[in-house]
Amino acid sequence: MKLKIALLPGDGIGPEVIQQAVKVLNAIAEKYTHTFEYSKGLVGDVAIKEFNNPLPEETLKICADADAILFGAIGDPKYDNNPNAEVRPEQGLLQLRKKLGLFANIRPVHTYTSLLHKSNLKEHVIDGADLVIYRELTGGIYFGERKLSDDKLSAVDTCNYSVEEIDRIAILAFEAAKLRRKKLTLVDKSNVLETSKLWRTRVAEISKQFPSVKLNFLYADNAAMQLILKPTQFDIILTENMIGDILSDEASVISGSIGLLASASIGKHTALFEPIHGSYPTAKGKNIANPLAAILSAAMLLDHFELYDEAENIRLAVEKSIDLNITTPDLNTTNHFSTTNVGNFISDFIL
Amino acid sequence: MKLKIALLPGDGIGPEVIQQAVKVLNAIAEKYTHTFEYSKGLVGDVAIKEFNNPLPEETLKICADADAILFGAIGDPKYDNNPNAEVRPEQGLLQLRKKLGLFANIRPVHTYTSLLHKSNLKEHVIDGADLVIYRELTGGIYFGERKLSDDKLSAVDTCNYSVEEIDRIAILAFEAAKLRRKKLTLVDKSNVLETSKLWRTRVAEISKQFPSVKLNFLYADNAAMQLILKPTQFDIILTENMIGDILSDEASVISGSIGLLASASIGKHTALFEPIHGSYPTAKGKNIANPLAAILSAAMLLDHFELYDEAENIRLAVEKSIDLNITTPDLNTTNHFSTTNVGNFISDFIL
Ligand SMILES: CC(C)[C@H](C(=O)O)[C@@H](O)C(=O)O
Ligand SMILES: CC(C)[C@H](C(=O)O)[C@@H](O)C(=O)O
Repeated sequence: MKLKIALLPGDGIGPEVIQQAVKVLNAIAEKYTHTFEYSKGLVGDVAIKEFNNPLPEETLKICADADAILFGAIGDPKYDNNPNAEVRPEQGLLQLRKKLGLFANIRPVHTYTSLLHKSNLKEHVIDGADLVIYRELTGGIYFGERKLSDDKLSAVDTCNYSVEEIDRIAILAFEAAKLRRKKLTLVDKSNVLETSKLWRTRVAEISKQFPSVKLNFLYADNAAMQLILKPTQFDIILTENMIGDILSDEASVISGSIGLLASASIGKHTALFEPIHGSYPTAKGKNIANPLAAILSAAMLLDHFELYDEAENIRLAVEKSIDLNITTPDLNTTNHFSTTNVGNFISDFIL
Repeated sequence: MKLKIALLPGDGIGPEVIQQAVKVLNAIAEKYTHTFEYSKGLVGDVAIKEFNNPLPEETLKICADADAILFGAIGDPKYDNNPNAEVRPEQGLLQLRKKLGLFANIRPVHTYTSLLHKSNLKEHVIDGADLVIYRELTGGIYFGERKLSDDKLSAVDTCNYSVEEIDRIAILAFEAAKLRRKKLTLVDKSNVLETSKLWRTRVAEISKQFPSVKLNFLYADNAAMQLILKPTQFDIILTENMIGDILSDEASVISGSIGLLASASIGKHTALFEPIHGSYPTAKGKNIANPLAAILSAAMLLDHFELYDEAENIRLAVEKSIDLNITTPDLNTTNHFSTTNVGNFISDFIL
């Protein structure tokens, strides 16, 4: 197979982890005789520096022309203390999601036997946890109208959802549940929010088309607690944009490190694959960032093109690296390896 | 001291836990020769059943006339599958917060030595954790305009914040931090939301009046992770309504049970004290609900009137019950006690 892959390494540790993912993709290409062609685009703070635009036209064009996008991370600490910066790295990612219509962000969370003891949660709590979060990605309060009042004394954000936006991701989530353990949990705040009520009504409606899938509901506050109290109760979690943002980072503690969590964003146009971790600026250039989330995002990319054996091969290699403790400092306090070491081990193991 | 206390037991386990809290308050009144007068009001589903109104006028009057309110819980499962119910128990609590101007919800979270081993988090992770969440309670998306479109095909919620709303709770939170470990963490989503940007700008501004307090910022997604990764890093967490709702339930896992977490809601009018747990309908009438959160809410009530010895006496008695394993099933898998047993032990211990 021939695939054109747009690489958007972005900021902070983004370039380092994407480099390892590419190394691994190249090993796959060689082993299975595929052709992966890469074109690189700027996004985030690096793009702001060059073009004063976190998502330059050229980057968007590269993405639109590609079969898939591999994204690193964006964000820079200089914006944290400057909330009023007009141009921000995050806008690059948000615009990309919106422009490509990437409405479904899919975030699998599971455990690795040899990492069970590393989680802050007790082993018996997380053992067997295996869930996938379906987070709506192009609607809600992330994309509603927002405004600082002229006198700068008040601000407003707007959360909108339409039936169409809810239905399309709900259908994907139910389809996924059907192929898994047949349980779907809708997380919302329908005891307060009008949009959540619409979610609950629609999802209940759609569930009738999927009689084999058991649907249940949780309020977001309770879900945040249940994820830690009993993560094994979940199969597919379906939720809106902002709640999904919070819960999926929280759920990373189940796996032992946010450096392990990959994601796929799919929708109308070119699908995008990205680690859920951020740009981790303090680790930048130190060769200590965990490349596994980026590498596993590359595996999700291959899954998307039904290259299941290839994706599985990557996952096996990742598991091997974890089993042998060939891991970065976040997972390995004693004899840790560098970002490059881990990438090399995995690509060598594949070949 | 003479105090008029409005009792709003509400739904589910609310009445059972409030009964124990009253028992404990009576023990305090006897021991320290105070007079606590109670008047009871209906709220939530029980009020809907009687008046088709989750917050009847009479209840509001009782609250307005009282020195303090002790609140149980509201909510009933029949609403979970009926998101479009026009009249809902939650409205009672939300209206009460709004009408009394209870803008600051204060939720302390700490560990108990003899419960350390019961948390799903590892002992070394939670040992020493001691934080207080200041959650804004009368603004944000909870109280903005909301609407289902006429064709029922879309819905909108609005999140508003004004400088005044931010400042008043920020000042309370900084004052609390000054008397504690002098660290305040603002949690927001200022990389996306306009209201969060206003929060960040204002809180940075106000921090100048509190030079002894160290201010830092976290995005909500990261905060949800950090609460589990390193809860001891937090002293005071300040945040807006919805994020505070999610994070405070999540933080309950640090203590070992949501049945331990008390809260105070203070503002312009009569302050309200409530356990953060919900109505827990499946436990209703079984005499198994944990009364400690309600009892500790009563202690916060006494603190509010500067009855510090009295409040401390309650806390000591609660600790004793925990040390001796005189606790309900949520904390005690082998030889558990009933709701009434626990309330009796604590009130007896005080006397
Ligand atoms: C960087 C930020 C805008 C983004 C989000 O909030 O969606 C990130 O946290 C994520 O989860 O992908
Ligand atoms: C019952 C519900 C409306 C309420 C809230 O969301 O504020 C509850 O979860 C709480 O935290 O007090």
